[in-house]
Amino acid sequence: MSAADRFSFNHATAKFWDQREAVEACARTGAGIGLWREPVQEMGLAATAKLVKDAGVEVTSLCRGGFFTDPTPAAIADNKQAIDEAAEVGAPTLVLVSGGIPDGGTIDTAREGVKDALDQLAPYALAQGVTLAIEPLHPMFASDRCVVATLAEALDLAAPFAPEAVGVVVDTYHLWWDPQVWQGIARAGREGRIASFQFADWITPLPAGVLTGRGQLGDGCIDFKRYLAEVDATGFTGPIEVELFNDTLWSRPGPEVFQETKAAFERVTA
Amino acid sequence: MSAADRFSFNHATAKFWDQREAVEACARTGAGIGLWREPVQEMGLAATAKLVKDAGVEVTSLCRGGFFTDPTPAAIADNKQAIDEAAEVGAPTLVLVSGGIPDGGTIDTAREGVKDALDQLAPYALAQGVTLAIEPLHPMFASDRCVVATLAEALDLAAPFAPEAVGVVVDTYHLWWDPQVWQGIARAGREGRIASFQFADWITPLPAGVLTGRGQLGDGCIDFKRYLAEVDATGFTGPIEVELFNDTLWSRPGPEVFQETKAAFERVTA
Repeated sequence: MSAADRFSFNHATAKFWDQREAVEACARTGAGIGLWREPVQEMGLAATAKLVKDAGVEVTSLCRGGFFTDPTPAAIADNKQAIDEAAEVGAPTLVLVSGGIPDGGTIDTAREGVKDALDQLAPYALAQGVTLAIEPLHPMFASDRCVVATLAEALDLAAPFAPEAVGVVVDTYHLWWDPQVWQGIARAGREGRIASFQFADWITPLPAGVLTGRGQLGDGCIDFKRYLAEVDATGFTGPIEVELFNDTLWSRPGPEVFQETKAAFERVTA
Repeated sequence: MSAADRFSFNHATAKFWDQREAVEACARTGAGIGLWREPVQEMGLAATAKLVKDAGVEVTSLCRGGFFTDPTPAAIADNKQAIDEAAEVGAPTLVLVSGGIPDGGTIDTAREGVKDALDQLAPYALAQGVTLAIEPLHPMFASDRCVVATLAEALDLAAPFAPEAVGVVVDTYHLWWDPQVWQGIARAGREGRIASFQFADWITPLPAGVLTGRGQLGDGCIDFKRYLAEVDATGFTGPIEVELFNDTLWSRPGPEVFQETKAAFERVTA
């Protein structure tokens, strides 16, 4: 299976594009799709499940659970609901972004909160047949969005659980700077933890709005062929999602962004 | 020696303040000073050396060498000159920021360039009695300013050399997100590599100009008391430099910034 056949379009890349149209574009081109909870809830769970099933489109992940560094009952309940949603739309994986430092806490207490939340959620996910995918985010997001900052840390957090229950996301944008990333990918493969593989590029200078400044594939400094080779070497053969949070892309028509992104993916993996 | 007695004011915290006035303020309060090459060159090396000597002010570092991921003869020559300057003004340490990814290279080739540069510079530094201090920068600077992104990586780079020749900078701003930072500090102490200890705070949301958005001590999420305790536990008793790149601070009068910074340092370490 060539890399081009593993392309999955994360809906956030064309955030304001109608979910139905996005799924139909994926169907026409054989792409998978990464869905987001808000548009799924807006269309309705059953309607979304029917849409992707009728279109024959593989749902590669549901984004996004997490934000449980302060694992309140409400946060846990919301994550259980996200697991239910993933199961209902046929997503094998729920992506988890841990959240930042809670009021009055430190990054160390926040990390303890993540462990606590995983303890509560992993059995539920396993029972629902959904793998929780811990996503390490770039360290510039560590205070407000995700205290899990490296692949090694995500793997350590996943270690107490079965790989079917808890895995990790390998996202080039978040990990490319890490001198330990190749060892981390090898370890993730060895431990059966690669639950999601995502591409986005890092552009320089960093755009002012760092949350929405991910680069189109090929526009930045990331060596995607090497990522592909290193992940392939672990035996992982799953989909590769392209997820770009980018204000400029979001201002453009979805069909155009989809075509451009698919072409860029084929270029950087060819 | 209390932490308050270890305060050193990095001149970049009040970047546009006259160097002589900054040194005089340090002299009046018993503070050390971290100098920068540009103002030192502007005043002249001999004049700067006389200024700090007459004032009885300890020079805790000279900033900044590095930018040698493409270790051209010109880059090596400039770093040798920086070593000479450090020796002449009595700075025990030259801070090195490695530089980013050179044209046509990758982060991996850039890291090889750093090793090559250190091979060329370490014997020269040792002969001049100056310790090169490799500074890992926050990973958001990895593409354009510093491919050395973790303390562990800096220690690995320093390992082939005598600790008198090559050490590391422990800067809270750049390292606070790292789940391995406490182990890294313990290792740095054990290996005798702490050549500079710097404070700056991480504020949320991250300011738009990420290079100049370092927070005043106490305004962000960093637990300075813990950093102090962990570094103290290694036996390190050297100065603690406060280095804040911050547009708002830079727009204010130097004496005011100095007083505020000294007071903030005393608060977060008390």
